[in-house]
Amino acid sequence: MNIGFLGLGGMGAAMAANLVKAGHQVRVWNRSAAALEPLLALGATAAADPVAAFDGEVVISMLADDAATRAVIFDSGALASAKPGLIHLGMATLSVDLVGELVARHRERGVVYVAAPVFGRTDVAAAGKLNILAAGPAQAIATVQPLLDAMGQKTWPLGEDPLRAAVVKIAGNFMIASAIEAMGESSALVKRFGVEPAQLLEIMSGTLFDAPVYRNYGAQIAAQRYEPAAFRLVLGLKDVGLALSAGQGRHVPLPFASVLRDNLLEAIAQGDGERDWAALAQVAMRRSGQD
Amino acid sequence: MNIGFLGLGGMGAAMAANLVKAGHQVRVWNRSAAALEPLLALGATAAADPVAAFDGEVVISMLADDAATRAVIFDSGALASAKPGLIHLGMATLSVDLVGELVARHRERGVVYVAAPVFGRTDVAAAGKLNILAAGPAQAIATVQPLLDAMGQKTWPLGEDPLRAAVVKIAGNFMIASAIEAMGESSALVKRFGVEPAQLLEIMSGTLFDAPVYRNYGAQIAAQRYEPAAFRLVLGLKDVGLALSAGQGRHVPLPFASVLRDNLLEAIAQGDGERDWAALAQVAMRRSGQD
Amino acid sequence: MNIGFLGLGGMGAAMAANLVKAGHQVRVWNRSAAALEPLLALGATAAADPVAAFDGEVVISMLADDAATRAVIFDSGALASAKPGLIHLGMATLSVDLVGELVARHRERGVVYVAAPVFGRTDVAAAGKLNILAAGPAQAIATVQPLLDAMGQKTWPLGEDPLRAAVVKIAGNFMIASAIEAMGESSALVKRFGVEPAQLLEIMSGTLFDAPVYRNYGAQIAAQRYEPAAFRLVLGLKDVGLALSAGQGRHVPLPFASVLRDNLLEAIAQGDGERDWAALAQVAMRRSGQD
Amino acid sequence: MNIGFLGLGGMGAAMAANLVKAGHQVRVWNRSAAALEPLLALGATAAADPVAAFDGEVVISMLADDAATRAVIFDSGALASAKPGLIHLGMATLSVDLVGELVARHRERGVVYVAAPVFGRTDVAAAGKLNILAAGPAQAIATVQPLLDAMGQKTWPLGEDPLRAAVVKIAGNFMIASAIEAMGESSALVKRFGVEPAQLLEIMSGTLFDAPVYRNYGAQIAAQRYEPAAFRLVLGLKDVGLALSAGQGRHVPLPFASVLRDNLLEAIAQGDGERDWAALAQVAMRRSGQD
Repeated sequence: MNIGFLGLGGMGAAMAANLVKAGHQVRVWNRSAAALEPLLALGATAAADPVAAFDGEVVISMLADDAATRAVIFDSGALASAKPGLIHLGMATLSVDLVGELVARHRERGVVYVAAPVFGRTDVAAAGKLNILAAGPAQAIATVQPLLDAMGQKTWPLGEDPLRAAVVKIAGNFMIASAIEAMGESSALVKRFGVEPAQLLEIMSGTLFDAPVYRNYGAQIAAQRYEPAAFRLVLGLKDVGLALSAGQGRHVPLPFASVLRDNLLEAIAQGDGERDWAALAQVAMRRSGQD
Repeated sequence: MNIGFLGLGGMGAAMAANLVKAGHQVRVWNRSAAALEPLLALGATAAADPVAAFDGEVVISMLADDAATRAVIFDSGALASAKPGLIHLGMATLSVDLVGELVARHRERGVVYVAAPVFGRTDVAAAGKLNILAAGPAQAIATVQPLLDAMGQKTWPLGEDPLRAAVVKIAGNFMIASAIEAMGESSALVKRFGVEPAQLLEIMSGTLFDAPVYRNYGAQIAAQRYEPAAFRLVLGLKDVGLALSAGQGRHVPLPFASVLRDNLLEAIAQGDGERDWAALAQVAMRRSGQD
Repeated sequence: MNIGFLGLGGMGAAMAANLVKAGHQVRVWNRSAAALEPLLALGATAAADPVAAFDGEVVISMLADDAATRAVIFDSGALASAKPGLIHLGMATLSVDLVGELVARHRERGVVYVAAPVFGRTDVAAAGKLNILAAGPAQAIATVQPLLDAMGQKTWPLGEDPLRAAVVKIAGNFMIASAIEAMGESSALVKRFGVEPAQLLEIMSGTLFDAPVYRNYGAQIAAQRYEPAAFRLVLGLKDVGLALSAGQGRHVPLPFASVLRDNLLEAIAQGDGERDWAALAQVAMRRSGQD
Repeated sequence: MNIGFLGLGGMGAAMAANLVKAGHQVRVWNRSAAALEPLLALGATAAADPVAAFDGEVVISMLADDAATRAVIFDSGALASAKPGLIHLGMATLSVDLVGELVARHRERGVVYVAAPVFGRTDVAAAGKLNILAAGPAQAIATVQPLLDAMGQKTWPLGEDPLRAAVVKIAGNFMIASAIEAMGESSALVKRFGVEPAQLLEIMSGTLFDAPVYRNYGAQIAAQRYEPAAFRLVLGLKDVGLALSAGQGRHVPLPFASVLRDNLLEAIAQGDGERDWAALAQVAMRRSGQD
């Protein structure tokens, strides 16, 4: 398929590479050109600008956040230049407000918007093993299914409304943050009784909580290993903010998310903003005088 | 081995049965005698009172809570009658304050106290598949290891100080409650965007959260199936209270536990106290006007 | 003085009237023209548009919120048309981010921006008894002091940086919301013991809490009298949001504000959004099953 | 009147002195005898033990907390020795559970229990200006009214059930703690924008919050003056705990009290337990990196 791909950060580069390897014609664009090299070496071609990337059958965006997405999709004139019938596959984690606006403005142009945010970090993306949440017109999703299969291990269908995929992704990240906080508070508690957090977390993630989130973040917390950051704490604050603002728009109080926000702010104030967001666990340690 | 067993609720009865089946001589006692019948049918014998149960090589207690434990171990005169050298295996979930007091008073009598609280509900107990946290003198744990093996799939050693096993058990239950709350808030959030909680919870417990706690409680929350109660919500409040009081004693703030306490109280005020504690998830639904 | 006045809601109309009565030439503008009548009857003149209002010695804005302020000051071209030397007195409650932007863009035009948000509701404004927080260049504040004196009982100087007045106003509203919540929770607590909230609130606001906030909101809560709304609960949510976002920008966790936000959202979800924000007190009542 | 008086801490000593000065015969008892001297010098006589203090028309207790009250009233045999018709005026701040137990056990003995907790610190007690909350049989309150008048500036009647006075006192202290926290968070917020907390607190306590709690605690927070402690922070934690446990018993969630508890624990973990409880305000400062 003839695909434009916008955004070659750690995640986007890995995903675009898998599309190239699967035999698709991929025209890539990135804000800084340096990121293009590895893709061009694999056989991708360079799109001169976002407008050029929007000229094809499918365009995929994997941009950093709401602001980057607005700049590249709206302000650059890319969407305004799009031909009716194009399918835009938005795979970044975005606010529900922006997704709603994307849907409306694509509809005005006769362009189909499909939300397809993903679970998985860069290593998972590189292995083509992402879990993809997809919501949009069924026909369009069927069309892009080969692309999704090249990037992910499984596509989870969430119906016609792109907001649904957006909010499930946001809820999932909120659940991860909650798990980190619960491990952090529990670790601070047991440590005061002489139990190493590593012991607690090994037991829990070996039994009732034997799942990737607890095994992986548990190991980081146990070792207090927060660098290099696989996902920076400041981005965690952004994602918890997406949950809070989604909830605010529909009047859904989220007290755990409120605690997370306060604690992430404290972590940043204490200097941990650029470390991995598992460092959220240090907040409970510090408060109890155990750092 | 010649064992006294105190407390034949759902958990205790299943555990005692496994000891009988493993060939041990088990003398059982329970506050209400009706619970004895099935055990006697299996080959256990009846202890006339707690004092009689304390007369042997090992006594195991699996009583409802702190109050029941105090009544049976202290007030009945059982501990006061114990012969030096006896090993008392305390398997209930108790406050760290009471465990500290048990350790001290057993030591005065020359009786060894081993804390061995468990993870697993009654079906797991019946299958002999409990996860057992054990802390106490190494020699004593080695002596009772065959008993632990008859009741559990694995014993997790936590050192010499019984408080350590007690606090890890408390922390584990707090982590479970946190997982339920996170699922509840997330469910309320996505539902406002048209996503069935069942969809969210199936995705999450099939991927990043593929662990018993999320699969089992997730299924209950998805189906809003809170009866019959495997673990009553009022007991969940008691257990979160154990975490809060353990934290208070050592000055460890636990903001997630504070949210849980408030929400469990609200659930009780709204009539859900006798339902399964997964009904905690209904609080977020109700608050957002979606019950 | 020759003054333009933008925004004739309940507060603005009362403040502009006091300026007219004090003998100033006031050219008024409002989005809907109906609000102009009473002012014109007093002797004010009508400004055709925001640009016209910006043509004078001083312009005062008292617009509803950030969005209205952006639309009227920036988008209408008013600021772009302003002559250097004009003093703009911004008296609405605005976000610190917008105030920062206002300061920067006024400076570019050679226009002085003074932040002068107020404490007091419409009856206080009508009586010319507002408390005014003023921050901006000392010279400019001295120039507008007669205007401040016509509108307020006292001006509290906060230095040269307009952000300081903005954040103190935001903090003050947050303190009011906290007082309402504390009264609400306390009322729910004592009511469960048979004490009428009116009794509690009369005692407290007659002794240790003998201040306007507690007397006035206490009387509303005691009588559960939330209509008509002097300040709508949805606006309270907006103001607590201003505190949270000011805190987020500088990494200041505000756990009370987080609780307030969650509870205000719950109040809106339960149908109280258009009632007076003292209705926040009903949340605690409802949660405890006492509504 | 012939009065026994138990408990001569800072508060009790001042109150007993006012009773002596008003012409009553006061027999005083205190755990450590040193505290008796000043009272004896004023004309009081010494009671040999709590039993002796209970032998009269009225006995007043002003003991440190629940534990001290249990020890002196129950365990010493004092209540068991009391003659029917005696009135016991309990003026300490006690848990609702203990007050309920006091009521029941006094009734069994034919002794009248009146709860009469007070607002005011030692300087207020010395001036005879306490605010007294009184609940108990109307006849008994009428009898002791001259005593209440000697100790306080006003008696606030709360009906026949002593629990009502107990819970209003608990709610009042919770409101004070909430005011301190709100001032602390607001101070941390404005300080990040260059505003001295003293400025904020002077403005607020000079206008909308012009009441003793805000003026007095505001001045302490503004000056970060937490020593000597008029009321130690660890006692503040105890009092917030009384609110939480009163709420738990009747299923009233108190989210502000939960935040207060967590923050007070953090303050203790950080070394502020023996300072005045206004030091709670330092928690927000520290979290935002401004200590």
